Parts: sequence; structure tokens; C-alpha cells
Amino acid sequence: MGLAALPRGLGGGWARLRGLTGRPGGTPARPGGAAAPAAPLLWPRGAARPRGEGTSPAAAPRRREVTLTGPRYGVRRRPFRALSGRDLAAFERLVPGRAVTDAEQLAPFNVDWLRSVRGCSKLMLKPQTTAEVSQVLRYCYERNLAVNPQGGNTGLVGGSVPVFDEIILSTALMNKIISFDKVSGILVCQAGCILEKLNEYLEDQGFIMPLDLGAKGSCHIGGNVATNAGGLRLLRYGSLRGTVLGLEVVLADGSVLDCLTSLRKDNTGYDLKQLFIGSEGTLGVITAVSILCPQKPKAVNLAFLGCQSFAKVLETFTTSRAMLGEILSACEFMDEKCMELVERHLKLSNPLTGSPFYVLIETSGSDSTHDADKLNNFLEQAMTSGLVADGTVATDAKKIKTLWSLRERITEALTHDGCVYKYDISLPVGKLYDLVMDMRARLGQSAKNVVGYGHLGDGNLHLNITAESYSHFLLDAIEPYVYEWTARHKGSISAEHGLGFKKKQYIHYSKPNEAIFLMQRFKAMLDPKGILNPYKTLPTSSEGNMH
Amino acid sequence: MGLAALPRGLGGGWARLRGLTGRPGGTPARPGGAAAPAAPLLWPRGAARPRGEGTSPAAAPRRREVTLTGPRYGVRRRPFRALSGRDLAAFERLVPGRAVTDAEQLAPFNVDWLRSVRGCSKLMLKPQTTAEVSQVLRYCYERNLAVNPQGGNTGLVGGSVPVFDEIILSTALMNKIISFDKVSGILVCQAGCILEKLNEYLEDQGFIMPLDLGAKGSCHIGGNVATNAGGLRLLRYGSLRGTVLGLEVVLADGSVLDCLTSLRKDNTGYDLKQLFIGSEGTLGVITAVSILCPQKPKAVNLAFLGCQSFAKVLETFTTSRAMLGEILSACEFMDEKCMELVERHLKLSNPLTGSPFYVLIETSGSDSTHDADKLNNFLEQAMTSGLVADGTVATDAKKIKTLWSLRERITEALTHDGCVYKYDISLPVGKLYDLVMDMRARLGQSAKNVVGYGHLGDGNLHLNITAESYSHFLLDAIEPYVYEWTARHKGSISAEHGLGFKKKQYIHYSKPNEAIFLMQRFKAMLDPKGILNPYKTLPTSSEGNMH
Repeated sequence: MGLAALPRGLGGGWARLRGLTGRPGGTPARPGGAAAPAAPLLWPRGAARPRGEGTSPAAAPRRREVTLTGPRYGVRRRPFRALSGRDLAAFERLVPGRAVTDAEQLAPFNVDWLRSVRGCSKLMLKPQTTAEVSQVLRYCYERNLAVNPQGGNTGLVGGSVPVFDEIILSTALMNKIISFDKVSGILVCQAGCILEKLNEYLEDQGFIMPLDLGAKGSCHIGGNVATNAGGLRLLRYGSLRGTVLGLEVVLADGSVLDCLTSLRKDNTGYDLKQLFIGSEGTLGVITAVSILCPQKPKAVNLAFLGCQSFAKVLETFTTSRAMLGEILSACEFMDEKCMELVERHLKLSNPLTGSPFYVLIETSGSDSTHDADKLNNFLEQAMTSGLVADGTVATDAKKIKTLWSLRERITEALTHDGCVYKYDISLPVGKLYDLVMDMRARLGQSAKNVVGYGHLGDGNLHLNITAESYSHFLLDAIEPYVYEWTARHKGSISAEHGLGFKKKQYIHYSKPNEAIFLMQRFKAMLDPKGILNPYKTLPTSSEGNMH
Repeated sequence: MGLAALPRGLGGGWARLRGLTGRPGGTPARPGGAAAPAAPLLWPRGAARPRGEGTSPAAAPRRREVTLTGPRYGVRRRPFRALSGRDLAAFERLVPGRAVTDAEQLAPFNVDWLRSVRGCSKLMLKPQTTAEVSQVLRYCYERNLAVNPQGGNTGLVGGSVPVFDEIILSTALMNKIISFDKVSGILVCQAGCILEKLNEYLEDQGFIMPLDLGAKGSCHIGGNVATNAGGLRLLRYGSLRGTVLGLEVVLADGSVLDCLTSLRKDNTGYDLKQLFIGSEGTLGVITAVSILCPQKPKAVNLAFLGCQSFAKVLETFTTSRAMLGEILSACEFMDEKCMELVERHLKLSNPLTGSPFYVLIETSGSDSTHDADKLNNFLEQAMTSGLVADGTVATDAKKIKTLWSLRERITEALTHDGCVYKYDISLPVGKLYDLVMDMRARLGQSAKNVVGYGHLGDGNLHLNITAESYSHFLLDAIEPYVYEWTARHKGSISAEHGLGFKKKQYIHYSKPNEAIFLMQRFKAMLDPKGILNPYKTLPTSSEGNMH
């Protein structure tokens, strides 16, 4: 299955491109041309990410029971009230037929996708309207019952599942599109809409969502906003802080804050919605979102390139930015270890081989001829200057998906490699891979694999370390070293995943005490009883000085 | 002085373009071709906007004394302490030689650019460092002295000058660039850097500022951030909420909040800096800014087009967005009244005539051939479908500036037309001009001119009404009608200017009570004594229910 020919100049693969540009020298074409992965994809780009056991054949070996978070991490339950029969009856009245208490039904919502944390909630509520969310929270607030807001439960830092017996407040049934305006490109929808469904809806009308991520098939837009999700399109369309125009939020006491405007610009007072973007459900429950959507690009191309060093990866990025300009829509990188893992565990095949680094460069534009021209010029430059040793290009949607899956499914491949220690680091782009090499040297044989990949264009490294099983010894070798290293280089210890439950005690490495103190004051003001997603995002005073 | 020929196809003017595309029919070419304005420009694009009297010959007739804000608007001074000799001595120690008390020197900083509000501050402090700002505020906080933070004093809603005797805290001497990283495009600078100077600095390195506005020659980046300035590039590069990566802010009590990170992504806790963006100096004083800057486009083109109806203006916009895609960098409109005013008061000449509406469409891209091609296709389509009746195109920097000045200097022209009532409204783009027509019909002969222009692509209308002199009768005919109209169409009563002093009591038209209440709680938390820019942005409890 070869890659289709690009229109006007860009050939079906690297070899043809080389022929076209007619440059002497350079690396010989890969034998067999630029073949796309031959193995069938279990979860192609756009499909739901496998969640928990039973949803994926490959996940079968991971059926071990997950240890409860409380004992595992030594957390003490705060003095929230325990659920009573009277409470259950009240909730059944508020959301009739949508108060789930069956233990088996609850199980997958008590454990995170990585199977690293597990709560023991006895109740999940599935409201359909903002009014229901408001009534539920008002009741919880009055009765001092803790609440865990939950979207698609695809988070990677333990923010989306209960730590103890918090009531799970699911947005799963809040999945209505409220409006879409084709003139302005503004979509208004309930918080429980699945990202991929929204994108499909928009594509039919010539638009796309401004964000895209591997978990798109499961994640909810409300959860995306609550975690300020980054993803693959941030380089081009910017962060949710710019694209989210309005939010409707229910506060801890049940009051509804309506900031659901659909205006590109509004400078009337403080921008309250920003506080809820990235607050991980600790300040309020997002019930509806207004978001600015870009037009669907008429032409998309994807180049998958091999580089012989990280210095060449960096120069490939700066060259692509200079030469592709406004059509550059993604610039991702991964090291050869990542490729080995997706090949071994997911049976995907890498169309290139023999490079220590791989770069994915996507262009999205409004004119396929112009875009092919720009990409062609860039590739010729990258090849003749020796930045790129090998490469292939895809232009039709299916082949693009196939290539993207090599990058998007790394997270999944890692879960099959054993126990995973995940780090999501922002760094000055020049330092991005130093941390991986440093960690690899530091851990030596005690780690199974130390891999680095991520959003090169955004300075965002996903550092992952795998081992056969969980080990305190290994963890102590990694932490706080990884955080100290990041702080020393003025990076962020969480670029896009958030802090959730697992990273909150490390906030000090990226934020000064004055900022943390102010965050705690905001939390105390908006949620004085602390019922919303407790044990998450912010360290408590006693936890605040752990290092 | 004709417009230079565009490379590859786009001619020097409309006539040539029509010849090139060779379409029969359509509007005959303007006699004399597409001539650029012949009159010399007093303040060309990029020069400082004339500020107050004496800086501009044309401003001479406006030398009348401005009434003090307190009596004019019936505001009562809050019980802040009055400045004592002991205070003056203390400030002279904190910022030696930079505590201005001379009445004549202070005069221009007590009055706004529109000459609509005037305070009576007896002291302006000009700190050079964050530490000095911190010491000054700590002193003011302890002594209960009110403070008016001031950047370039170019605001249009009376937010940047004192209402009574607040101490003016000027950022004029905080004008150092701290760092610029060419790999990431991230600029870090002090708050008092002038926008245009920053842009010039960046252009030398192949980058530009992500915002641009008429006041660029005077306004400070700190003030831009404090008011969440929009401007001419927002359509392309997004709002400051996305491009500002970090801020350093001094809080009311003098404590320094260091959120001056230079990372594209950082999800460690709540994004505190967002609260200060657009807070108009009421929550803290911004002392330094970290901002993501786009690459300088290699090719810029500007088309100035005449349309026979607002419906055609709208269709021209949607067509340009569809056909120019990623290279569209601005889409502005103005009505013929605006053009009459810049011609009459500033002696600029309109290269087109006879159209009730004009549209400015700017493209910025990385390949001049491709861009000219896209623009050509768009113009042909716009012409043959009858959307556009007349037009001219500029491609070199000087001609582009000349055309841009027709749009950028409307604000200035208005100040020469008499007393100006200014409204900065966000609306669904389809409703944008209805308000102007409605207002024109409503006011009839009681207004001199009712004009509409603005950022079409952002749904942002600048509605301006002029009269020979100030009249309560006229004001009552405009307000609250204009705000009610805006609220009825779910618009915002301040798209980009902020609320400042003059619009704060109308916040209810765009924000629900719950949101205003929450804003007041944030203000009370961060500035419990209310010393920072008092009488601005938020209504006090008694002022809150004025309508």
C-alpha cells in the first residue's frame, strides 16, 4: 500500500520527490519506496482510545486490579459527609433514572485510563441540563458531599477519577450541540460533546475544531477546556485561552455563572472564564462551551522525516517554520525508541528506518498547488542541506491518518511496555531532548525504556520511562530529579496534562509561592467547603512543602 | 503617485487588474486610475498619534480647557488620604529625581487623549524597575493613597487618567527589552516599551508584534495588555489572551507576582495572569510582559475596495476568508461618512469614490507569488460577482501605509469634527451596520455625523456620533438606547476599548449580575483598600443599578 501521488510535483514518496527535484547526492531512496504501515490498525486515528480493560484485546494483559489511591499514595480522606440513603433518594429525584449505584457499572469510572489511580465512588450522576447540574451541586454543597466532575476520563494525571468516595458527576449525557454559526465559525455546545463528534459535525459544514488530540474519540470538550488541553493543532490555531469565547459554569454552591458569549471580542470587566480553563474541575463544573472554529483546510499534506541528530531535528523545525510559514499546522517529533514500541506492541510499521529521530510536519492550507510548492521547496532544502536523511509524504486523508497513528499511538504503545512513568514537560525547544539523554544515562539498566516525543513546535516534551513493574527505587531516581532539571531550565513540569492528583505536590517547581498562595485564595473563595474535585491541582497547606 | 505594480499578475490598480482578468461588464475603471492619497500625511501610519494640545497643528482649535471629571460627571471622591509633604519626601527617596510635581508638566497626564476627562493629580512617579514599583505601592497601600497606573495614555474610555488626585504611576521609564529568543519568537520586555518601538526591534530580526493599532506610536505594551487591546492583527494572530505567555505584576500591597514565564504551554495551576489582562490597572500594575511574536511575513498586500451595500461588504468578507484562507491578515470596513471626514479634516484623499462602503483587505504570507495568485483569484471573483464596484491594490510598504492611514486615522479625523460620542461594540457580524443605520434615523438632524467603521472580521463596530458641542439632550437620545440595542442582539458594549471610567456603569448590559458580583469579589480580594485605579471598570454597589 503505497502513498498516493501528491498533486503538482510532490510525489508519492521520498524517492519520487528526489527524482523530481533532480538534485545529485543526498541519501539513497529507501528500498521499497515509502510504504505506509502495512499492519491493520486496531484503533486508527479518530477512533476511541481504548479505555480500561475489556475495550481492547491488547489491553488484556493489563487486567490486574488497580490499588486504591488512598492507601497507595497515603492520602487521608477529608471530612466530607458519606453518602446516605436519604441522599440517594434525593439524587434519584433530581436526575431520575440517571443515578448509577451498581458497583460493576461504576468500576470503569473509578479508575483512570492509565490504571494508576482508583477511587471507590458509590454513585455516578448523569445530568442532562445545566439546571440539573446546579440542583445537584446545591444539594452537595449544603450536605458537604464531595464531587468529582468527569468528562471522557482520558486524563493522564489522575484528575478525572475520585480519590475516595466522591460522587462522580458525569457530563456524558450533556452532549447537545446548541448552535453553530457558519459566518463567524462559532460553535456553542454542551460540555459532554465528544471532541471527535464535534469535529465531524463541523467538517460537514466546512470547519474544524481548533484542537485535536489522540483521545479525541472519548474526551469531552468540557474536559478539554477544564484541563486546557493542548494537542496537535496548537501550533497553528493557538491555545484554548484564545479560542474559547465563552463558558457556562456551575459553581460549587450550585449558582450558575453565564459567560457563554459568542463574540470574538468582549472587554467588559475581568475575563472570568479564563479561571475555569485549566482549573481541572476544582473551581466549577463547565456545562457549556462557546468556541471559535477555523475553516477546514482545503489541502493537507503530511511529511514524515528521519533525522540523524536532535540538532538536525531542531533545524528542520526552524527551516519548516521559515519556509512553510502560515501553512505549517503541526511539527511533532519522536525518537527511534518510540518507533520501536509502536512497531513491537501495536504492529504498526515504520515506513522509514535507521534514523534516531523522526519528525512529522503537517501543512494545512487553502490551495493545494501552492502548498505542494511550498512543501516541495522545503523538502528540497531540508534534503540538500543534509537536515533530513530519509522521508515520505502523504496527501490523501487515509494515508495521512496512517502516518499520524505512528505518533498518536505512542502513548498506547507505552502502556503495553510495562509500568509507565509519564512526564509532560515544557522546555526551551533547544533543551528539549537533553533531558531524555540525561535521564537515560542516569537510569541505565534500571529502566526498560526511556523515550522522548512530543510537540516540537510548542517546546513540549513527553518523557516516558517504562519498567517491568512499579518500583519505589526507580521512582526515587526519577523524581524529584526530573522536576529539578525542568525548574533549572525555567520549564514547566506540566505543559498540557495539568496537575490533577499525581503532580499537584510538584507545582512549586513551576510556580512561585505567591502564585500558589493566590490560587489557594481563589479556590477558597469559589469553593469554601472544598467539595469540587478535592485532592487535585493545588497542594494543601500541609502538602505544600513536600520538597 | 500611483501604486506600484504587484508582482505576477496583480497590477498597480484596479483598472489594470480588470484588464488582466479580461472580464467584460462590471464597473468602469475610475478615471485617473487608482491614485494614492496625494496630500502629505501629518501623522503617517506608525507615527505617534497626536496627544493633547500643542502636538498637532490641526488640534489647535481644541485648546479649550477640559472640565474636571469630578464635577462634570458628579462623582464623589472616596476617602483616600491626600498627599502630604512627608509623602512627597518619601517618594523622592523611592524614585529620586523621578517624582514630578510641577503643574504644567503634569497637565497632559491628567487629561485623556479625547479630552473628555480630567483629573487633578499633584504627583507623577516614574519608576524604572519592578522593585521601585513594589516599594511605591507598598507605601501607597500602607498610607491609603490612591494610584492611577498610566502607560501611553491613549485609552478611549477615560481609564488612563486620574479621576481626582490619584498619584500617576507612569511606566514611561520602564522601557527595556529584557530578552528576545529567535528560535521561539518570545519577547520579554518591561511594561513601558512603546508598541511601535517593539515592532521595529522585532522587524530587524524577522519577527513582528502580534498586535497593531493606530496608537502604536505612543501606547505602551503594558497598557495594551492591561486593556486587552485588540487592533488590526487580531483576525490573524488572535487576542492577547493567547499571545501573552507571562506577566510580572505588582499587587496593590506591593507584593510582586512573578508569572513571567516564556513557555508556549504551562498547565501548572490556575492561569493567574489572565485576570490582569484586561483589568485596566484595577487589580495590579503590570511591570513586564512575555509575548509570543509571529514571524514577519515575507509578502504583504493590501486591497482597498468599494462596495455598494453592507450586504456586499459582508459577502466580500466571507468570500475573502474562503479564498484567501491562511493569508488573510485584516478585514476592515468603513462607511462613506468616514471617508468624507478623513478627506475634509486631514486632507487625505480617497483613491476610490462613489461607494457607500469601503473594505480594506490585507494579506500576509510567506510567498509573494502564491499570495498574489490568491488575491488575484479573490479579486476576480469579487468583481465578476458584483460584490465589489471599485478597488485598488498596494503591495509595497509605503503605499500600504498610505492606504492604511485612511482607516487608521478615522479616530483622529473624528476629533476634528466636534464633540464625539464613541461606542465600541461587538455584534454578530450580520448585524454590524444595522445599529449605525438605526442610530442615524433615530438622531436625525440632532447629530452632525453618525459614522460606522471597524474590524469587520472580528464583528467589532466603532460607532461614532459627532455634534457641534456636548449636549445632554443628544446623549439621552443615544444612551441607554445604544446599549439596549447591543444587549438585545447579544453583543458587547465594549469590544476592545474596555470600560474605564466612562463605560463602567453600563457593564450590566453585557454581563450578568453573578459575574459582576464575582468580579467585585476578586477586586476586594486583590485590592481590599481599592487604591488601584479607583472609579474604573467595575460599578460600585450604589452605581451598580443605574439603569
